This record gives sequence, C-alpha cells and structure tokens, in this order.
Amino acid sequence: MAPKYTLRYFNITALAEPIRFLFAYGGIEYEDARFEREEWPEIKSKMPFGQVPVLEFDGKVINQSSAICRYLAKMVKLAGKDDLQAMEIDAMVDNINDLRQKIGLYAYEADEELKEKKRVPLVNETVPFFLGKFDEIAKTNKGYFVGGELTWADLFFVAVLDYMNFMFGSNLIEKYPNLQKVKENVLAVPAIKKWVEERPKTAA
Amino acid sequence: MAPKYTLRYFNITALAEPIRFLFAYGGIEYEDARFEREEWPEIKSKMPFGQVPVLEFDGKVINQSSAICRYLAKMVKLAGKDDLQAMEIDAMVDNINDLRQKIGLYAYEADEELKEKKRVPLVNETVPFFLGKFDEIAKTNKGYFVGGELTWADLFFVAVLDYMNFMFGSNLIEKYPNLQKVKENVLAVPAIKKWVEERPKTAA
Repeated sequence: MAPKYTLRYFNITALAEPIRFLFAYGGIEYEDARFEREEWPEIKSKMPFGQVPVLEFDGKVINQSSAICRYLAKMVKLAGKDDLQAMEIDAMVDNINDLRQKIGLYAYEADEELKEKKRVPLVNETVPFFLGKFDEIAKTNKGYFVGGELTWADLFFVAVLDYMNFMFGSNLIEKYPNLQKVKENVLAVPAIKKWVEERPKTAA
Repeated sequence: MAPKYTLRYFNITALAEPIRFLFAYGGIEYEDARFEREEWPEIKSKMPFGQVPVLEFDGKVINQSSAICRYLAKMVKLAGKDDLQAMEIDAMVDNINDLRQKIGLYAYEADEELKEKKRVPLVNETVPFFLGKFDEIAKTNKGYFVGGELTWADLFFVAVLDYMNFMFGSNLIEKYPNLQKVKENVLAVPAIKKWVEERPKTAA
C-alpha cells in the first residue's frame, strides 16, 4: 500500500510548488497541508530544521525541497535514464537554486540602502549571466534542460519561476525564448496543466 | 574502460574535498587538477557557470559539488540502500550545505561592521542550532548520519569540516561528541586515512 503523504508549507507556491508539480505529474495522492503566516512560529518549532516544506509519511518528517523532489522524481520516472543524466539534472537544479538564492538575498534584504546596492549587480550581471546559460542549455536540449526530454529539472524551474519572478519584481524569462519553451513544455503536460488551473490562487 | 576523470579546483580542500574523499574511498583514478589563485580569472571564464569544482570526463564539464558527489557515491555504493535512504542522505547534505552557506555569508562579508553584526546571531543561534540537530542525528545513528552506517553524507561533512572551521575561526564540533564520532568513523576508513595523510598540505 502506498504511504499517506503530507506536504506541509505556507499557502504559497515557492519551494513547495516543485513538489506539488511532481505529485500532480505522477497522479500521487497527498495532503497539501497549507498553513497561514500566523501559525508559522508554532509550526516552525516542531520542524526538524525549523524549515518548510517538509514531506511527512510513515512517521518520518523530511526537509529540503530538492531532496524531496529527487525522491518523487525517481518514483514518477523523471530522474534521468541513467546516473549520468541524474547528475546533469541534479547540477541543473542546484544551478537554479543558486540563482534563486541570489535573488532571495536581494529580495529579503531588510536594509533599504543595502538592498538598492545589491540590486545593481543582480540585475546587470548575476541574472543575465545565469539566465543566458540556462537559455543556451535549453536551446541545446530543444526546450528541455537535460537529454532533450522532460525531467524534474524542467518541472523544478517552471514551478519556482513564479516565486523567483515575485522576488525579482518582473518576468525573468521575458527575453529568453528557450526558457519560454521550457515553460510551455512543462505547462503542456496535461496533469500539470490541470494542477495549475485548479490550484489555490495565492499571492506568491 | 573507465573514463579519465579530471577534478578542477583551487589548491585547497573546501568544496572539492568531498569529491576527493569519494575518489579515494572508491580507489578511482582521477587527475586532481589544482590551480593557483592568480590563474582563476582565466579559468573562471571557461567554466560552465563561472564556478569550481568541476568534474570533467568524456567531453563533459559538470559543476555543482553535491551533484558530482552523488554521482560518485552511487558508483562506490555510499548512496543508501534504497530511495528512502538516498533522500535522507540528500536532505542531510543539503542541511550541511545550508550551515556552510550561513557561515560563508559571515566569513566573506567584506564590510567589517556588517561582518561583526552577522557574527553574533551566527555564533549564538545558527551554529548551535544546526550542530545540535546534527549531533542528535549522529547519536540516533550511532556515529553516522543515515541508517546507522557509512554513507556519503558522513564523508561530505568530514571533508568540508576543515573549510567550515577555517571560515568560522574555531573547531565547530568541539562540544559535540557524536559529531566527533562521525569524524573518527570517516577518518578510520583506511582509504580515507591514507588520502588525508598524503594529500597536499594547504592553508584551507
């Protein structure tokens, strides 16, 4: 019997959305347990590393969104056709996470003066550098990131893109046709399309 | 025939050392290609994401140290006995990377005033929080992090510990007996012991 999965996260897309995409893709049942911001302090104190998302099943509480995604990706056969592809997917996901963290270091900077100082190199250097590389990779792989076919690296990117756009303040992929193609390819998967249409509408 | 592997990195331990530990553990031949700081600008411009370490083989150049480690860990059978253990290892490694990045955000802060401001919560909250959790996990798993036996999560932690200590300015695990046990267990593996004795002596 399949275990009963619970995904615990804020009522936003962000770091839980790649996990939700994978559950949707595989048609795997789970409880999408969303909480409101005012509940966070109490929940935080019970989380293994004070962080969410976590995946709960069989008495285990696992944190780290990429680790959770990789586990589900193996289950739904999106983790590459061999160990070499699995490594290329993993590297791509960590490159996406690097970009996300760099945008986050700017977006969550509380000091307005420092934030403005961080904005210039982010907008002029970091973001175009990463997205230029990603676009090139997507071009080589015909609208996917690895092996010319759908993997969890594509789902991961498209699922966190809304959150990255939200933090950055504009549409990151506007000038990158091959990244737009990745987005189209992922959103064309019927189960993902259905999820995106039906998911709760949230601010981020 | 096994491919010819080249690992390219600075002449320090840091992010390349977990990869070197895994090569040593598996007795896998590779070129440990170290460069000096003055060579970095030229090398950087040729790296896929302007970053090292990279693993080069069969015409591929792969960045992201955790992705490279996971690939080698599968090869040398340190990646867990099933997908569930693999996820637990992956989450542990990402938790270690979270701590490393938090220490790095302090250590590499160029503004002395800001650096001092970051030091207090790092020393009093972040580091004890993470290490307390890690120590608890190591206690439950009898001197290992996952499943009560050696996995690449243990090698990863011990291999980057010198670098984290260097950035932090003191021995992080001094007050954590179960993390000391993880270190002992990893350094007791004959191939690792031999590598650590024979490896180039470097500043970090």
